[in-house]
Amino acid sequence: MPDATTPVAALKDAIRAFAAARGWEPYHTPKNLAMALASEVGELCDILRWLTPEESVAVARDPVQREAFADELADIANIVFLLSAHTGIDLSEAVAAKMTKNAVKYPAPG
Amino acid sequence: MPDATTPVAALKDAIRAFAAARGWEPYHTPKNLAMALASEVGELCDILRWLTPEESVAVARDPVQREAFADELADIANIVFLLSAHTGIDLSEAVAAKMTKNAVKYPAPG
Amino acid sequence: MPDATTPVAALKDAIRAFAAARGWEPYHTPKNLAMALASEVGELCDILRWLTPEESVAVARDPVQREAFADELADIANIVFLLSAHTGIDLSEAVAAKMTKNAVKYPAPG
Amino acid sequence: MPDATTPVAALKDAIRAFAAARGWEPYHTPKNLAMALASEVGELCDILRWLTPEESVAVARDPVQREAFADELADIANIVFLLSAHTGIDLSEAVAAKMTKNAVKYPAPG
Repeated sequence: MPDATTPVAALKDAIRAFAAARGWEPYHTPKNLAMALASEVGELCDILRWLTPEESVAVARDPVQREAFADELADIANIVFLLSAHTGIDLSEAVAAKMTKNAVKYPAPG
Repeated sequence: MPDATTPVAALKDAIRAFAAARGWEPYHTPKNLAMALASEVGELCDILRWLTPEESVAVARDPVQREAFADELADIANIVFLLSAHTGIDLSEAVAAKMTKNAVKYPAPG
Repeated sequence: MPDATTPVAALKDAIRAFAAARGWEPYHTPKNLAMALASEVGELCDILRWLTPEESVAVARDPVQREAFADELADIANIVFLLSAHTGIDLSEAVAAKMTKNAVKYPAPG
Repeated sequence: MPDATTPVAALKDAIRAFAAARGWEPYHTPKNLAMALASEVGELCDILRWLTPEESVAVARDPVQREAFADELADIANIVFLLSAHTGIDLSEAVAAKMTKNAVKYPAPG
């Protein structure tokens, strides 16, 4: 199911069930997950570090690089979903609340 | 709308419209966004770095800390959504594809 | 004293004494320090995330930006020194050992 | 030569010569190096993410884990040295200046 029809909760439930089936949940404290996030973001940065911004745009057009990029993005997303699931912080509500704050901080022009 | 009923695409559309209204899109190359992600993950790590894993679990139970945590999680999620939107990599499909690979790499115990 | 005449150990001793005088050492486990490093590297990325590579070169020529950059670089260096001090891993020896490995992995062109 | 007798500048010169011999210097803008730093710190976090703080202390006592840790710490240190070399920011002076600021911000108890 694509993003257009997949509720955020479905992805959260899927990754949580995957971790639970492997007995990983005791390791998934917010501290450990934040550290895992730093690790996975580092892998994304590894793909892009020596590229120009323009070359980084082209990554998505190369099938091999695109798959590597998608894999890292999925790893990052999954940890975000686990952090949301384990803290009980609803991601959609947190995003809406932060966007309201940011709309005040950075008003749209005219 | 909570995670249970919010499609992933709705969050992607919302953050993209927010950025477009402010003229930020030219800055949103994958390279710049990955660097922004490292920066936002750093802010999440800042909240948790001196806490024990147990104390990090308690963050979600304290109203003030919970809001700070939720704000950082939202910032991170928004950049993940922007990376998905700008590369055209469907997040739900990327997560499903990666989970299939990980199920082979880490088989669930019988 | 500048880098030309400052032994690495002098910087390690200085930051360790600074932390000890404030009772911070119990918090300085490798796990916590690595997380602090992710946080400080995030602050450096925050300065540079929307800049082009060329603009990032110019940061060192602007007095205000240079000081902000130097402050972040110092924070990062100090955590590297603390990690070295607390693990007993000699930084100069680790750098030499890694360079020997990398010289095999990436031979210099004839 | 160990940290006790190695000037910071000697490590900076060594890594810079290593990079120059391989034609890597054009890639070493502050933006690219900061992104490389996020990547290398991610690798250090990868070693430690599921460990308790106590287990992270024990890493330095296990020969195999210690070498992996030392390798990552060296990678991180080398990028810090390259950032210092390319910006002309003297690391020892930056550390001293930041410590003076921090001594005001966090006064040592009486």
